[in-house]
Amino acid sequence: MAVSVERRVAEAADLVTVALDELLPRADGPESRLTEAMRYAALGPGKRLRPYFVLETGRMFELEERPLLRAACALECVHAYSLIHDDLPAMDDDDLRHGRPTVHKAYDEATAILAGDALQAAAFEILAHPDSHPDAGVRGEMVMRLASASGARGMCGGQMIDLLGVRDDLGAVARMQRMKTGALIACAFELPLVMAHSGEAERHALMAFAQDLGLAYQIIDDLLDAEGDPDLMGKRAGKDAAMGKANYVTLLGAGAARERLNILVEQTKSHLDPFGPQADFLRASVDFVLQRRN
Amino acid sequence: MAVSVERRVAEAADLVTVALDELLPRADGPESRLTEAMRYAALGPGKRLRPYFVLETGRMFELEERPLLRAACALECVHAYSLIHDDLPAMDDDDLRHGRPTVHKAYDEATAILAGDALQAAAFEILAHPDSHPDAGVRGEMVMRLASASGARGMCGGQMIDLLGVRDDLGAVARMQRMKTGALIACAFELPLVMAHSGEAERHALMAFAQDLGLAYQIIDDLLDAEGDPDLMGKRAGKDAAMGKANYVTLLGAGAARERLNILVEQTKSHLDPFGPQADFLRASVDFVLQRRN
Repeated sequence: MAVSVERRVAEAADLVTVALDELLPRADGPESRLTEAMRYAALGPGKRLRPYFVLETGRMFELEERPLLRAACALECVHAYSLIHDDLPAMDDDDLRHGRPTVHKAYDEATAILAGDALQAAAFEILAHPDSHPDAGVRGEMVMRLASASGARGMCGGQMIDLLGVRDDLGAVARMQRMKTGALIACAFELPLVMAHSGEAERHALMAFAQDLGLAYQIIDDLLDAEGDPDLMGKRAGKDAAMGKANYVTLLGAGAARERLNILVEQTKSHLDPFGPQADFLRASVDFVLQRRN
Repeated sequence: MAVSVERRVAEAADLVTVALDELLPRADGPESRLTEAMRYAALGPGKRLRPYFVLETGRMFELEERPLLRAACALECVHAYSLIHDDLPAMDDDDLRHGRPTVHKAYDEATAILAGDALQAAAFEILAHPDSHPDAGVRGEMVMRLASASGARGMCGGQMIDLLGVRDDLGAVARMQRMKTGALIACAFELPLVMAHSGEAERHALMAFAQDLGLAYQIIDDLLDAEGDPDLMGKRAGKDAAMGKANYVTLLGAGAARERLNILVEQTKSHLDPFGPQADFLRASVDFVLQRRN
């Protein structure tokens, strides 16, 4: 199973990259510096985990691939825009992302701000298009979910809390994580749920899965930040500690964080029990997704 | 007529401000710095001309007020976000907007970037909500129009071209203006057109109206930039000339630009002929909108 999950993740990444290449505006006209920067950010290396979860969840519900791919691309555009803006000097001030210069380093700050803005617009333009679902009500619902997950009560709000650094207990760290990264990860499952007109039980199970997966992912991120090799990560390590920011590892210690992670991994998978063998690939992807970062 | 247009613009501004106050997230929770900054930008002083045109055009088509107001608010959110980001040090580097400190001056750069991002998300969340139109297909179409007008082939692309400063003839200046400001002005007419299921002829007439109005507005902006009183404008004057950027006034001279403007004003109004007396307020608003800036 492990090998085939790896292949499925890689195949999903390829599908999404090809689809994004089709969907994003071409680099022509006097504004080509902008569209080039958008493509540099969105088509460059990346794990494409959110798009993978959109596709894999959609397959579990036996949805058609083409609309799923568009939803996956929209989500990836929002993710890509958030990385561009988070990397800016006024935000996290990172020079490297996946081992390459960040957008403001490869281009300049103004271009990076605009590329992020235009990628956000592209996400909603892609999602609202009739090709993304035959039912306009479903498309509207997907736009609302993605906007809500990425706005002031979701990703942007979480990034604000992270920047302010106002957190001194696990509850505050958990709330920040749920907003900053959890909301968009949850959206990877919400979009196919909306497309499949799923019921409350399925939604509840997948939201619990997404929340625990996001938390596990964050603990690993914090472990990597504390112990990781910057060359392997493609970005700087030890940032939180250096900036005096609390995270799971600074609050719990590496050992206890790792223990919590192990429990969490089993708990995450257990949320998929109601789906039976149909969820085998999602279930196997938990280990894959978390192990390759561990 | 002039007095009543003035009153209608003021009333529309009040309606939209009250509606935005309801629709934007409240300033609570640890992310309140973000929601405060969003409100500072979107609820502060502003002419609210785009929302006015949404409402006035919708009234011409006898549309209901509540959905129109939501569309007007969504458009104003995009406008507000674009001003926050345009004012950033890496972009136009402005300290004042409508006589108040710009968002990055009143807060900080990171908050300004995030407030712009979250306002863009809010725009699409508002527009896609069922309250914005009973027909989900209409809502999806509106999301697509707004995303397209504000993205790489519209507003963001125009700002990129403006920053690059690559323009040495009227054609290049006109193309930049159509993208940077014209696309969003046109959207103020497109949203009610979509809501009203209008036909090609009406759409064609209003798009021509919007294009000429946007051009006239830009020429006045360039005249103000060359001659204006910074206290009256609430921002710095003479920026284009100081930065060696071509605009209508630097290319044509103030006298010829003013002549062109006068012809354009009559041409703009003539596009409304097919609508007869139903377009009286829109027609009268041309003089009002342009005169108060002249």
